[in-house]
Amino acid sequence: MRYHRIPDETVRRLPIYLRGLLFSKDLGQQSISSRDLANFVGVNSAQIRKDFSYFGDFGTRGVGYRIEKLTKQIKRILKLDVIQKAALVGVGNLGSAILAYPGFKMYGFEIAAAFDNNPRKVGRKINNIVIENVSDLPALKKRRINLAIIAVPRDAAQQVASALVKAGIKGILKFSPCYIVVPKNVKVITIDIAMDLARLPYYMPAG
Amino acid sequence: MRYHRIPDETVRRLPIYLRGLLFSKDLGQQSISSRDLANFVGVNSAQIRKDFSYFGDFGTRGVGYRIEKLTKQIKRILKLDVIQKAALVGVGNLGSAILAYPGFKMYGFEIAAAFDNNPRKVGRKINNIVIENVSDLPALKKRRINLAIIAVPRDAAQQVASALVKAGIKGILKFSPCYIVVPKNVKVITIDIAMDLARLPYYMPAG
Repeated sequence: MRYHRIPDETVRRLPIYLRGLLFSKDLGQQSISSRDLANFVGVNSAQIRKDFSYFGDFGTRGVGYRIEKLTKQIKRILKLDVIQKAALVGVGNLGSAILAYPGFKMYGFEIAAAFDNNPRKVGRKINNIVIENVSDLPALKKRRINLAIIAVPRDAAQQVASALVKAGIKGILKFSPCYIVVPKNVKVITIDIAMDLARLPYYMPAG
Repeated sequence: MRYHRIPDETVRRLPIYLRGLLFSKDLGQQSISSRDLANFVGVNSAQIRKDFSYFGDFGTRGVGYRIEKLTKQIKRILKLDVIQKAALVGVGNLGSAILAYPGFKMYGFEIAAAFDNNPRKVGRKINNIVIENVSDLPALKKRRINLAIIAVPRDAAQQVASALVKAGIKGILKFSPCYIVVPKNVKVITIDIAMDLARLPYYMPAG
């Protein structure tokens, strides 16, 4: 089921809540108040209550939200209740860091393939993933991989994105700081490290 | 001047607008309508108008926003109208990718120092930055560096963060997927690659 009425901004925060809930569960908690969750994830509790109201979880007075139930609910909404396979394109420094990143499993992600255009890298194994040649991207279509992570230099990003779209990829997470054009039914999310850094100085004391 | 009434969510979007404006300027534009900016950055135009109203820029009917003026205004609010120096801690694959990242300059950032605990890396030069020993972090205090980027393994993140706080760092951008404890006057922003990826499946068609 797709929850059509959930605003993008709420969807953006759901993984933040999910992370907070998974951490709380690891700490042995079974329930959490919206105030505690707010402190934990850095979103105010009124916003949390409003976001959760979109899918009808209002918590229980005096008990708060049941972590197990809410975790399942958010995972279902985000379609993370099944294992989501992703392909990585670009195994330079950033790509290698992504392959070694321990945080994907928590959300049910599996990096199932990695591609590079450097013949010296093709065939090498990083974290049990054999690096394939980018010319083999079209074969992704048969492998039930719907997501891709682009970690190639800026100049190559559009070309790689177009190849991924042709190979049936429906969602792209991209690190290259540039705009790319894809069909409307393909969702692109950009991580621009500098853009995130750009929010920091605002909060710093003058001087 | 600090614009006290600007909500965090608006502050989070300001760098997104700034990026859109800088790209538009590169394309030779002098002004942009809220609708065009909306299409460009992926935020709806009502939200853009509301965000800009916090600092009093309502655009001009029929002309839109003047890119140069608005860019300056946003930079001033975000304190990006001066060069902001940042220190990087952790020069593994991710740290090396950050040192090579071309996107910082656009926002006025300069990675001015890099630290690692591996003696074989200390003294080496990447992108004109000589890698220093983490034991020298306290010396940051004298170097007018207020920001830091943490790219160390999870287990080391808290220790590094504490050392940075002692060295006078006021803002931390961290990639390690874990919670860290810092004093209230230090702002921490976490980039969790997996968390960003977690927003994608929601938008994908079923099947």
